[in-house]
Amino acid sequence: MENGSSTTSKKWGFKGNEALTKASANSIRTVLMNIMSKIDPQDPRPTIPLGHGDPSAFPCFRTTPVAEDAICDAVRSAKFNGYALQVGIPPARRAIAEYLSKDLPYKLSADDVYVTLGCAQAIEVILTVLSRPNANILLPRPGFFLYDIRAAYTQLEVRHFDLLPEKGWEVDLDAVEALADENTAAIVIINPGNPCGNVFTHEHLKKVAETARKLGILVISDEVYDHLTFGSNPFVPMGVFGSIAPVITVGSISKRWIVPGWRLGWLVTNDPNGILEEYGIVDCIKGCVNISTDPPTFIQGAVPDILEKTKDDHFSKIVNILREVADICYSKIKEIPQITLPSKPEGSMFVMVKLNLSLLENIEDDIDFCAQLAKEESVVFLPGVIVGLKNWLRITFAVDPESLEDGLGRVKAFCERHAKKQ
Amino acid sequence: MENGSSTTSKKWGFKGNEALTKASANSIRTVLMNIMSKIDPQDPRPTIPLGHGDPSAFPCFRTTPVAEDAICDAVRSAKFNGYALQVGIPPARRAIAEYLSKDLPYKLSADDVYVTLGCAQAIEVILTVLSRPNANILLPRPGFFLYDIRAAYTQLEVRHFDLLPEKGWEVDLDAVEALADENTAAIVIINPGNPCGNVFTHEHLKKVAETARKLGILVISDEVYDHLTFGSNPFVPMGVFGSIAPVITVGSISKRWIVPGWRLGWLVTNDPNGILEEYGIVDCIKGCVNISTDPPTFIQGAVPDILEKTKDDHFSKIVNILREVADICYSKIKEIPQITLPSKPEGSMFVMVKLNLSLLENIEDDIDFCAQLAKEESVVFLPGVIVGLKNWLRITFAVDPESLEDGLGRVKAFCERHAKKQ
Repeated sequence: MENGSSTTSKKWGFKGNEALTKASANSIRTVLMNIMSKIDPQDPRPTIPLGHGDPSAFPCFRTTPVAEDAICDAVRSAKFNGYALQVGIPPARRAIAEYLSKDLPYKLSADDVYVTLGCAQAIEVILTVLSRPNANILLPRPGFFLYDIRAAYTQLEVRHFDLLPEKGWEVDLDAVEALADENTAAIVIINPGNPCGNVFTHEHLKKVAETARKLGILVISDEVYDHLTFGSNPFVPMGVFGSIAPVITVGSISKRWIVPGWRLGWLVTNDPNGILEEYGIVDCIKGCVNISTDPPTFIQGAVPDILEKTKDDHFSKIVNILREVADICYSKIKEIPQITLPSKPEGSMFVMVKLNLSLLENIEDDIDFCAQLAKEESVVFLPGVIVGLKNWLRITFAVDPESLEDGLGRVKAFCERHAKKQ
Repeated sequence: MENGSSTTSKKWGFKGNEALTKASANSIRTVLMNIMSKIDPQDPRPTIPLGHGDPSAFPCFRTTPVAEDAICDAVRSAKFNGYALQVGIPPARRAIAEYLSKDLPYKLSADDVYVTLGCAQAIEVILTVLSRPNANILLPRPGFFLYDIRAAYTQLEVRHFDLLPEKGWEVDLDAVEALADENTAAIVIINPGNPCGNVFTHEHLKKVAETARKLGILVISDEVYDHLTFGSNPFVPMGVFGSIAPVITVGSISKRWIVPGWRLGWLVTNDPNGILEEYGIVDCIKGCVNISTDPPTFIQGAVPDILEKTKDDHFSKIVNILREVADICYSKIKEIPQITLPSKPEGSMFVMVKLNLSLLENIEDDIDFCAQLAKEESVVFLPGVIVGLKNWLRITFAVDPESLEDGLGRVKAFCERHAKKQ
């Protein structure tokens, strides 16, 4: 709009909700945009984006034609131009139930599935559902910042438990027991782990479920990186333990199909004992979904084909590249004394790396490290403080192998240049 | 999920947010689903859905191939599989700015445009932005229920002003002045009108802007039915008066392109004097959008082609059918003394019809009328109480002409059968 200036002396009575402006100031995207603004536009080298997990721009991570065909077929059919039921269209709900049931000891029904706008809306829905006066929720540290933002937004009190780097980032279950009280509604776990790149064992997940049962709380299991594992622990869905404690899983096609921009996710009740129904959670999920915006109908229409027709070669291609880049990430970082990787990543697209500030000169903290790195090397990392760990860094390795080698090579040069003189 | 029963005596500590369950109980879709559940499955006649505005299922309303091509091209390009900027991708913002600027005396810039998940998310965003302690908003009665639900949800106080059927559903501006106080943030108008089917004149819109200026409030203009006019008043965007009072318009491709299920909309600041920027509203919109879920990237990628390449013949086809069905609606309802249409619809896809209960036997109110009508005739209307007018009915005429004739014929038979004996 052409810029006029408000020359009148007119007073206007409206004002924005400042809490909202503040809440978003620390979102991952806002922080990343600040860091990216430091990049020198004169640098002839390509920017290496290791701050957020979106490999879709790299040709080696291109999604399967099956998924593209499914979308085009759905649009061309003209059957999916209208409004959908807000819980999701039945064929999409059924297909998701069948897809997830393959890994469970019981069968999910279509009614257990709510189709959402990516995993993000599933998170929004469940936190909104659980927000009651005085209620609190247990979140992992480090974790995924959207949980904190959304909890703040719905006035749900947040209590953080630690993930333990020395134990492969397992949940500190003693801390969980110490934090919970009669107003605790749920514990959130993210498996495979964002931001730690770990994969929980069957045994550990069972302990989480038993702890939840003991505390009388439900488990929210964020499985948006489901099946993206390349180490010794296979992916085990938390729903396997749904008869120990009720489980709500959130997930999407974003990661396994490398289409985060398609915004197609789900919220699923894994609860063979019907406890979520009995305690009114199911009705409340329906209520929340009813007044939310649903995912585009034709994308829902494409879901059965996407889930049923995608061949294993697509999945193994993606996992193989992730294994390769995780290896590169591990070996390259081992060469840099100023940053430490506690263990080799085995899943998801991220690792947490510890910044050894005592070995660096004129670097104040993780934010400063990321800003100077962007400025000097056009490499983007996310400061760990944004995901709960100050003076750590969150790095994604889900870029093509050449870019990762190039990027981590520049990080090494940066750290050598900034190394504290002995 | 297989139904187990909770045989354990275990107590669980979580509970749903009951306010949420209640808020959604009166949503249009919930009410319509209740009414549709009355339909006799044995009725061999097709159900005639005149309760909600979604003509996409009727072949005569099929969208243009230009729009379908744009989506398929965007998906096949693989350029739009990743995350987008949450305000919207620049080409989509630019295309929307240019599309809307055609009808304005000044040029919108891409920065004035926020791409949203249908018009519904645009409504969510602006109500969230304006929600501050004690703030209130002025909503039309009858109106669109999503405003009321969303305002309740964000704890924004709602004050209703009447639309006047005897004045072609114009805003009761005296009532607006009487309702407003120093905590009033905005007035909402919907033009072309849902649910009244009216189109505001240039003169009346100017008066609305002048009233807003006098009161120091902004105007939210819901123009989701923009250009769907077929009477004597042409569509005039409220943004034309953006220099009198700041205007926020919300809209989408849902109605003009007959693709409500695509969920592609926008929120636009029409504010040549920069007042929304000065008063922090723009920063707050950005903050809100930053923590919301954005529309699928490839649908955004299709927006420039959809807006720039759609030919006039598509638009004139749609308006011509709407004119035809509006005429059928008007003439058929005139034949039924038990319901009265105050004036001929001139825009949008809806009319409000007054129920003359004194001429009907054993019909309690509008909800009862709709329930009995669905049961006996498989015709679905929306009870007026849901949009703010008890004992009125909201009817959409946006179905194919044969279905409308059939449906209103059944309504006539129903009313004759239920007519009070003289």
